[in-house]
Amino acid sequence: MSKPLRLGLAGLGTVGMGVVAIIRKQAELLEARTGRTISISAVSARDRGKDRGVSLSSYAWEDDPVALARRDDVDIFVELVGGDEGPAKQAVEAALAASKHVVTANKALLAMHGQALAEAAESMGLQLRFEAAVAGGIPVIKTLSEGLAANEITRVTGVMNGTCNYILTRMEAEGLGYNALFDEADKLGYLEADPNLDVGGIDAAHKLALLSSIAFGTQVDFAGIEIEGIKFITLEDIHAAADMGYKIKLLGVAQMTGRGLEQRMQPCLVPETSPLGQLSGGTNMIVLEGDAVGQIVLRGAGAGAGPTASAVMADVCDIARGHQVFVFGKPAKTLREAIPALSLRAAPYYLRMALKDKPGALAKVASVLGDAGVSIDRMRQYGHEDDHAPVLIVTHKTTRADLDHALEAMGHTGVVSGTPVALRIEEV
Amino acid sequence: MSKPLRLGLAGLGTVGMGVVAIIRKQAELLEARTGRTISISAVSARDRGKDRGVSLSSYAWEDDPVALARRDDVDIFVELVGGDEGPAKQAVEAALAASKHVVTANKALLAMHGQALAEAAESMGLQLRFEAAVAGGIPVIKTLSEGLAANEITRVTGVMNGTCNYILTRMEAEGLGYNALFDEADKLGYLEADPNLDVGGIDAAHKLALLSSIAFGTQVDFAGIEIEGIKFITLEDIHAAADMGYKIKLLGVAQMTGRGLEQRMQPCLVPETSPLGQLSGGTNMIVLEGDAVGQIVLRGAGAGAGPTASAVMADVCDIARGHQVFVFGKPAKTLREAIPALSLRAAPYYLRMALKDKPGALAKVASVLGDAGVSIDRMRQYGHEDDHAPVLIVTHKTTRADLDHALEAMGHTGVVSGTPVALRIEEV
Repeated sequence: MSKPLRLGLAGLGTVGMGVVAIIRKQAELLEARTGRTISISAVSARDRGKDRGVSLSSYAWEDDPVALARRDDVDIFVELVGGDEGPAKQAVEAALAASKHVVTANKALLAMHGQALAEAAESMGLQLRFEAAVAGGIPVIKTLSEGLAANEITRVTGVMNGTCNYILTRMEAEGLGYNALFDEADKLGYLEADPNLDVGGIDAAHKLALLSSIAFGTQVDFAGIEIEGIKFITLEDIHAAADMGYKIKLLGVAQMTGRGLEQRMQPCLVPETSPLGQLSGGTNMIVLEGDAVGQIVLRGAGAGAGPTASAVMADVCDIARGHQVFVFGKPAKTLREAIPALSLRAAPYYLRMALKDKPGALAKVASVLGDAGVSIDRMRQYGHEDDHAPVLIVTHKTTRADLDHALEAMGHTGVVSGTPVALRIEEV
Repeated sequence: MSKPLRLGLAGLGTVGMGVVAIIRKQAELLEARTGRTISISAVSARDRGKDRGVSLSSYAWEDDPVALARRDDVDIFVELVGGDEGPAKQAVEAALAASKHVVTANKALLAMHGQALAEAAESMGLQLRFEAAVAGGIPVIKTLSEGLAANEITRVTGVMNGTCNYILTRMEAEGLGYNALFDEADKLGYLEADPNLDVGGIDAAHKLALLSSIAFGTQVDFAGIEIEGIKFITLEDIHAAADMGYKIKLLGVAQMTGRGLEQRMQPCLVPETSPLGQLSGGTNMIVLEGDAVGQIVLRGAGAGAGPTASAVMADVCDIARGHQVFVFGKPAKTLREAIPALSLRAAPYYLRMALKDKPGALAKVASVLGDAGVSIDRMRQYGHEDDHAPVLIVTHKTTRADLDHALEAMGHTGVVSGTPVALRIEEV
C-alpha cells in the first residue's frame, strides 16, 4: 500500500463541501480504486465561523489559501476559491512553487493564465488538473485528453452553461420574459456573483477556451472567442424559433480551419428534435468530433455540489494513481499560439425584424437579401402590432459576411424598425 | 524522451487495419500526447496473403498469435482475434505470462475469463485494457473506472449492440419484417460470424457483464444475466409500440439491489422522446448513474474500424503514459462474487395478444389481470383479422411475478391465442 494522499482544500462553498462529503462517505471506495487512502489535512475559506452543517474540526485551518498551499502536510492543493486573479491565482502559483499538484474548478483562472500555469506545472513535473472547470460532472477533459487521444479533433460543440440553458428553457416552458427568469435564477442561487459571467456568455466561453486548447493543440485563447450572451433573446424569439421547429441555445462551437481557430459562444438555433435541442434545464452537453471516432456526445449535470465534486475527485484519484497527463493534452511548451478566425462557413440563419406598415415593405426586405446573395428558405409575416409587423425569415446557407451586408443594407431601406435579430442555425 | 512503445498486433480485420491506419496517420499526435513514439513491431492474422489494401511488409509476420505475443520486440500485445477460447485466449495468456501488457477488443473472452485474466495481469503488474470491447468508440470503461471513480454507481443502462438497433430502427422506418432486415444486415457485414451473438443479445450481454463488474465491484458474471434477443419482435409490435409513444430497443440494465446484482439484456420499450428512444441505426448509448454525479449519458458509434481503433489506441496511449488502473476498476482479488437477482422492481409493461372472437373475451383478459393485481393504464383493441383481434395493453407498474401469474392464468381462459408478448417499459 502506498502512502496516504493528503489534500489541502481551499474554498468551502457548495463544491468544497461536496468534496468533503465524498471523502467522508467514499473513503473505502476511493482506496479500492486508487490503492491509496485519500484524506484532507487542512482547509481554508473566507469565513471560519460559518455553519457549514458538518464539523471540520478534524482538519487544520488556514485563513490564507497561500499558506494552505505551502503546508508540508499537503500533497494536492484543491483550489475552489474562484476568480482569475487574487487569492486563487496566488495560491495556485504558491502550490506549484512548493511542488504540490493542483486540482481546480476555476475556469476563469485557466482561461486567462492557463498557458503560464501549465508551463510552470510541467517544468516541475506536477499535475495541474481541471476536470471540474468544464461541464461539471461530465468527464470531458479526460475524454478529450485520454479517451480520444488518438483522434485529430475536428470540432467541439456544446451547451456549457446550465444557468443560461435553465433561463432559456424556462422562458419557453413558462412563457416568462428574460428579466423575470433572470430574477428567478438569481433567487435560486444559480448565478455567479457577477451575473454577466453567466448570461453574458463569459463563463461558457472560458470553458470553450479550455476545450479548444486540448482539442486543437493551441494555447488557450479566450480573447479570440466571439462572444454574445443571451440578454437580447426575447420571448418572441423563443416562440418564433419554436414555430419554425427550433430551440435557442447558448452554443459554443470551436473548430480548426485553414485560416485559424474559429471559436464562438453565442445563441444559436438548433433543431428541436436534435440532442442539443432536447436539452432542458441545467444540463450540459458536449459534442466531440474526431477523425477516427466520429461523433461522441456527452451529457450530464453541468453544476451542483455532487457533480462538480465528482469531477474534482476524479482528478484527485488520477493523481493518487500516479497518472500523468499534460495539462492541455500536449506539452505546454509545444502548444501553438492560436490564430483567431471568424467563421466563413455558410450556415442557415434565423432573422426576426419589425417591418414598418408601408406599402412594399416586405418586397424591399426580400430584394435586399437577394441582392446580398442571401436566399430565403422560409418566411412568415405575422399580423400588425401597433404600426409594425413581425417578420421571421429562415435563410438558406449563407456566410456571415453576406448576411451582414444584407443587414446593413436593410437599415437603409427605411422599412425596418430597429436592428433585426440574426441567429445562426447549427445542425450538429 | 522515453523509449518507443512497440505493439504486436494480432488480427488484421476491420479493426486491426483501423489501428494500423491510426498509427501511420497520427504518429506525431500520439507522440505529442504520450511523450513516446508508438510503433508496430509485428503482426499476425489467419491469412498472410490476403490483400488488405496497404503494405504490411515493414512489420514482422507471425502465423501464430501466441508466438507474436511472446516476441521480445513487443511491449503491448493487441488482441483483435476474437472468440472466448482458442487462439485469442491462448495468446492473451501467453502475453501476460511473457510480461506484456494486453489491449483487447474481445468482449467474449473477458466476459467468460475476465476474472482469471485480471488476476493474472495484476499479479504481474501488467495492464489488461479493453475499452474497445464495449460500445466501440465511446470511452465508457474509462468513464466508469476513472471519470466517475469517486461515485458509487447506482445503475448502468444502455443500447450496446448496433446491429440490433440497426435492425429495429430499419424495421420501423422501412416497414420491413425482422427476417428481411436480418438478411440485409448480413449482406452489409454487420453480423458476427455467429449471428445469434448479435440478435440473440449475447454480444450486448457480454458488454453489460463487463460494465457491471466495474460499476459494482463484482466479478464478471455473464451467466447471471437474463438474456432475451430481438428475434421474436414483430413489425406489429414495433408499430403498436410507436402508436403508444414508444420505441423498442434491446436494452441492457444492471443495478445492485439489496438481494444481489440485477442484470438484464432484453427488448424493452422506451419513450420515443427519450435519449434512448431517439437512438437510431448503429449508434450506442450508455447511461451511467452515480450517487454524486447524477446521470451521465454517453453516445457514439458502437462499431466500425475508426471508432473501435480509436478505443484500442486510447488504451495504448494510456499504457504509453505509464497509467495503471485495475482491470475492473478495483483489485481483481477483492472483487466479490456476484449474486444474481431477478428484478423485483415494478415497471409498466406492454402486452400484445391475439384475442379469439368470443363474447366477453376482453372482459376475461381484464379480469385475469385485475385478479393478479395488474392494473391497466391503456388498452386498445384493433379490428378482427381472421378470427382474432389484436389487443394492446400498457399496464401500470407491476412486478414481473404478478405479471407472470396473470399471463399464466390468461392461458387458461381459452380466449387468447398463442402466447402474449410482454415487454418491459423502461423510463431512464
